[in-house]
Amino acid sequence: MDAGSRIENALLAAVSMADFPSCPPLLGQAMQHAVFPRGARVRPRLCLAVASACGEDMPVLTDAAATAIELLHCASLVHDDLPCFDNAATRRGRPSVHKAFGEPLAVLTGDALIVMAFQLFGRLTAPGDRLQSILLTVGRSTGVPSGIVAGQAWECEPKVDLAHYHRSKTGALFAAAAVAGAASAGKDAEAWRPFGEYLGESYQVADDLRDSAGDEDEIGKPVGQDAALGRPSAVAELGIEGAIHRLHSLVASAIEAMPPCSGASMLRAMMQSEVKRLVPKKLAQFAA
Amino acid sequence: MDAGSRIENALLAAVSMADFPSCPPLLGQAMQHAVFPRGARVRPRLCLAVASACGEDMPVLTDAAATAIELLHCASLVHDDLPCFDNAATRRGRPSVHKAFGEPLAVLTGDALIVMAFQLFGRLTAPGDRLQSILLTVGRSTGVPSGIVAGQAWECEPKVDLAHYHRSKTGALFAAAAVAGAASAGKDAEAWRPFGEYLGESYQVADDLRDSAGDEDEIGKPVGQDAALGRPSAVAELGIEGAIHRLHSLVASAIEAMPPCSGASMLRAMMQSEVKRLVPKKLAQFAA
Repeated sequence: MDAGSRIENALLAAVSMADFPSCPPLLGQAMQHAVFPRGARVRPRLCLAVASACGEDMPVLTDAAATAIELLHCASLVHDDLPCFDNAATRRGRPSVHKAFGEPLAVLTGDALIVMAFQLFGRLTAPGDRLQSILLTVGRSTGVPSGIVAGQAWECEPKVDLAHYHRSKTGALFAAAAVAGAASAGKDAEAWRPFGEYLGESYQVADDLRDSAGDEDEIGKPVGQDAALGRPSAVAELGIEGAIHRLHSLVASAIEAMPPCSGASMLRAMMQSEVKRLVPKKLAQFAA
Repeated sequence: MDAGSRIENALLAAVSMADFPSCPPLLGQAMQHAVFPRGARVRPRLCLAVASACGEDMPVLTDAAATAIELLHCASLVHDDLPCFDNAATRRGRPSVHKAFGEPLAVLTGDALIVMAFQLFGRLTAPGDRLQSILLTVGRSTGVPSGIVAGQAWECEPKVDLAHYHRSKTGALFAAAAVAGAASAGKDAEAWRPFGEYLGESYQVADDLRDSAGDEDEIGKPVGQDAALGRPSAVAELGIEGAIHRLHSLVASAIEAMPPCSGASMLRAMMQSEVKRLVPKKLAQFAA
């Protein structure tokens, strides 16, 4: 099975935990809406790719790690879209969860997705040390002091620490995807953290480029939000060409930081195709 | 160390995960505000009591289970108090988290507390089977299909299933406290579920009594909310005396459902003192 189908199947199986008469039907529908149809699934694909490059031997555990990370990402989007944050009416080209289901269900959908991410690990049999390493990694990438929730909370501070903000808000789940992928294969997981962190940073820069130079149909959400909301952005700081240069240098750093593994060339190829995919079409001449 | 101090120490240690420069300071303060000063800590005390009655041999694991359950309870209070749900200005006699820190931080505080509950299990060394049993129990009591988040979501349905609503919204974490207590001691954990479920139901009835016949100083939150918000309540259904009768019969059922254990008489005594504590003072003559 290709990685894409494998991820969709694992996400479908996870979200089907809501398919019981004891579950409020609208909550189940809102969770479906938050997770499907597919987004780019960048983080779980990275997790699977690292696991495979490390000689994956427990696919059930990799699936759980990849699924957990994507569910946590989806949960953060649902909560970030709420009226008290970005007040976003659309997401992936469709109504955001609070627009479609109301604010109370949007809060609860995020909560239920966060819990579901961890519920997965209670439902499988795996060696205790790998399981604990993944739990620690996934928890750290989401909670305090410096996971995605903490990253979002920097937006509530009178004085923002930009380095912590980006590292937490975007970098944390990328680092977790790489580390958890290696952990699920029983490898020295922390050695993969710098690789994941560089990729996370490069994704943040690509996202800033898409926000400033993409078009809404291409990226599935409103553009120009960073400038409109006065949010920090690599484009605001470096300009478009400067941001593209930074993106390439971050990907080069990630490749350099990659620990030795049997699947190194596969990973390198994957990263190069990601860069092409993520840079808006109208900037393609710079991305070559 | 007595159970009360043990629980406060474990909660302090957990929340101190936010004490790093990388953590946005207001998020750390809001989490403190949500967890301290102590509430009644009914659920973690139950968890510790069951573990002790079962011959507890891994106190670190019991502490993690009890702490996780209390953090999840605190998270649910923070989110339930939000303007889009109960819009409660006070909690435990102080401003609710969104009143003190604003709505965005209240959403994120709940999220961070949910994640923290699970982070705890990545930070300890424990036998894989006990750990997985506790993870499964705690996840199930919080998420879908029938944990506290699902319970809260019943309030968003056009047609509420009252039995599922109560069992999920209040019963689930009580059942988890009992089951996880037994699991942390390596005992047949699921045998403790009916005991925990009866206690959860009895606590719901006591809470309804406090809402309808307590006073605000005594219970630390506004009274009369069930009637004002048209919420289902044992008092609305059975009247005050009927609800007190129901409370006693549920506690008797819990005692009957208690699996054989060395600490049975201690547990019985604890339950009887809880009933006395939970029934509002002005109804004490009925509670004897």
